[in-house]
Amino acid sequence: MKSRWLLALTALLHVGALAYAQSSARHVNQQRLWTTIEKLSEFGRPAGAGFAGGVTRLGFSEADMAARTWLMQAMREAGLSVRVDPAGNIHGRREGSENLPLLLMGSHIDSVRSGGNFDGDVGVLGALEVIRALNEGKVTTRHPLEMVVWTNEEGNHFSYGLLGSSAAAGVLPSEVLGRKDEDGKTLADWLRRYGQDPARIAEARIPPGALSAYIELHIEQGGVLDDSKIQIGVVQGIVSFHDWTCTATGLANHAGTTPMDHRQDALAATARAVLAVREEVRAEPGRQVGTVGYVRVEPGAPNAIPGRVVFPVELRDLDESKIDGIWARIEKRFARISTEEHVAIDCTAVQVSHAALADRSMQNDIRDAARAAGYTTLDLPSGAGHDAQNMARLTPIGMIFVPSVGGISHSPREYSSPEAVANGAEVLYRAVLSSDARLDRRP
Amino acid sequence: MKSRWLLALTALLHVGALAYAQSSARHVNQQRLWTTIEKLSEFGRPAGAGFAGGVTRLGFSEADMAARTWLMQAMREAGLSVRVDPAGNIHGRREGSENLPLLLMGSHIDSVRSGGNFDGDVGVLGALEVIRALNEGKVTTRHPLEMVVWTNEEGNHFSYGLLGSSAAAGVLPSEVLGRKDEDGKTLADWLRRYGQDPARIAEARIPPGALSAYIELHIEQGGVLDDSKIQIGVVQGIVSFHDWTCTATGLANHAGTTPMDHRQDALAATARAVLAVREEVRAEPGRQVGTVGYVRVEPGAPNAIPGRVVFPVELRDLDESKIDGIWARIEKRFARISTEEHVAIDCTAVQVSHAALADRSMQNDIRDAARAAGYTTLDLPSGAGHDAQNMARLTPIGMIFVPSVGGISHSPREYSSPEAVANGAEVLYRAVLSSDARLDRRP
Repeated sequence: MKSRWLLALTALLHVGALAYAQSSARHVNQQRLWTTIEKLSEFGRPAGAGFAGGVTRLGFSEADMAARTWLMQAMREAGLSVRVDPAGNIHGRREGSENLPLLLMGSHIDSVRSGGNFDGDVGVLGALEVIRALNEGKVTTRHPLEMVVWTNEEGNHFSYGLLGSSAAAGVLPSEVLGRKDEDGKTLADWLRRYGQDPARIAEARIPPGALSAYIELHIEQGGVLDDSKIQIGVVQGIVSFHDWTCTATGLANHAGTTPMDHRQDALAATARAVLAVREEVRAEPGRQVGTVGYVRVEPGAPNAIPGRVVFPVELRDLDESKIDGIWARIEKRFARISTEEHVAIDCTAVQVSHAALADRSMQNDIRDAARAAGYTTLDLPSGAGHDAQNMARLTPIGMIFVPSVGGISHSPREYSSPEAVANGAEVLYRAVLSSDARLDRRP
Repeated sequence: MKSRWLLALTALLHVGALAYAQSSARHVNQQRLWTTIEKLSEFGRPAGAGFAGGVTRLGFSEADMAARTWLMQAMREAGLSVRVDPAGNIHGRREGSENLPLLLMGSHIDSVRSGGNFDGDVGVLGALEVIRALNEGKVTTRHPLEMVVWTNEEGNHFSYGLLGSSAAAGVLPSEVLGRKDEDGKTLADWLRRYGQDPARIAEARIPPGALSAYIELHIEQGGVLDDSKIQIGVVQGIVSFHDWTCTATGLANHAGTTPMDHRQDALAATARAVLAVREEVRAEPGRQVGTVGYVRVEPGAPNAIPGRVVFPVELRDLDESKIDGIWARIEKRFARISTEEHVAIDCTAVQVSHAALADRSMQNDIRDAARAAGYTTLDLPSGAGHDAQNMARLTPIGMIFVPSVGGISHSPREYSSPEAVANGAEVLYRAVLSSDARLDRRP
């Protein structure tokens, strides 16, 4: 229980900080942030390459371990008290002036194979830059602030992405602990290498009521902001995705001896199915997307009529009822193709990820912060998954997007300019202070 | 030089044999032929399976070697003088009454992996049955008769089919001798195991003028005869095939973050290309066929927009100018798809096999023989390749087809009835005698 004079003082300090944040001068240091991003890029950099050569820093790899050690040192140097939870997530805490739940900022530093130096890194090092800027400005927040580095967001080990934040949200299936990677090591083995006791992974769960809000800065990974030359994306939510696996079963036969009108060509039927998916997704307005990412053909020879084709269908949108409607139309199209081609098409739902909506007030904090800093903004959904969607199970979330040049991500060609990245960190700085001022007010 | 009385005698014998062949009674023995087919099926039969379980008797395998040893013994027991040429082809000779070039009958006994007991076997054992029937009938032909068993027709070793007949026709590229199989053994190594000297493979070439004609009995491997309930196919020729490999190059991207109207989806473009191939092939009457046998997609994940797709296009017809015309139309369609989808589509010709037309008189001999025996006939092209196409480089050829149930081939489910197979052997018997009577007559 704090004394009344302390409460009054912190309220005053807060008002001052908020006024400062609302000026259009930058609080974050663009050069320092960029230098830190360049430093992180050295962990997992391809031999002989420079910064532009991208990075391979899979979760739980040697490169990841080394990067984490370096990062924890940098966090300590920024005055944070650092701990690692039983899922390997790194937490760095900066005390607040009131006894309130945490305001959490975070993202990840693991990458895909041959990925870029922005996906995840911008959010983690942007949060670190916010801490450094708050320290420089001697700003005290009401809420304790924490930055978190989530484990294995990309899921390149154990085929389970958002691993650390899933554990924090209490939704990590326990069987994942026993999954083996290509070298036969289990997730439990890896956690032990991280210095953790896998038996205690449930303790990584963040208890109910421990958070006031979660806010994540990230690159867009798409081309909407870059195309429209808008500086800041205010994320409306993380879309739902539904994945199906479909099998088209025709009749394999000799490509030379089987007349055209006797064929049950599973690939021709699949070609029609691929185009039907696209047509039905495009058939109504909105930002929904639908993808057939591959087809696998058997027997698969130039002189054999395809007898069996397996292909996935993925639909994404913020509105799950829209996904249901599009899928219903796709199924009707598949049934007609099946009849006309004498090729059975059977689909099974394999994965559903529900939409995670961003909190309206958090969106407002972000939009207002960006505008106060003089940046243009656009409200848009996130088509990619993020750790924020797990945090949405626990607390109101907000996400800030900065433009990805050409919309390219998961590639060494992934790029966001030093200015774009600093814009994002500046919005994170200002939005955190706005949320800090707004949240958990006594009635 | 034969004496005049011998010539007169053989001419008389021939007329008798011809008259005998024109009756509708069978000369070949259906039961004996079927028993021999069943016996051959034991070499390469899957463990625990019966005759219906198909066969795996790849060229140059242990099963192939054992089958050849058994077959050579059976050929010797039928009175043939047997030799193996430097390409491993087995020749069994039955003398004629005149000093004329050979009348050659043949096919192959190697199979594809998990193949059937009819593809090739019917032609080889049908020829053996013709020899046995001629022996029983004490028929002497004017021409020396030879049955040949061609090496490695299916090409499952060294990716080079029609191997033995290519050597016999003098068109086997010498580099093939150095090709290694999965075990690192070269074709030369295998030929040595067959007891041959690979350095002498050029001597497998059949010299110009050594043949009067070549005739091959084979299963149709397609469903035309079976569907129309016709007993004998008179092959018009072996179709030409042209193979291209095409690459569609779009832009790989994140399936969640890339709006539908920003995509350069190489698989969607390929789907349109697959359907365009089929439409253009079907756009004119005839027996031409066109096939896209597979597509290979990169990066190939449910959540990645396909950036690159490789796919083959194969066109087949007896008339190569028709193939050229269809391909020209397909290229125009691909160019339009490319422009509309912002996906480059580039195709390279990878293989051309020219058409091998059957000799008109040989076709007549076969058709007349079938009708004389009371069988229904249909003239049709062979959509599959056969050793006969190599022999067409040296001599007039004819081919006899018997129905494949359901048009299924290269599968354990490949089947032709004992009666269908015996019908084919009977036509081979009669056609050989007709050709023997017709060919190489003095003016």
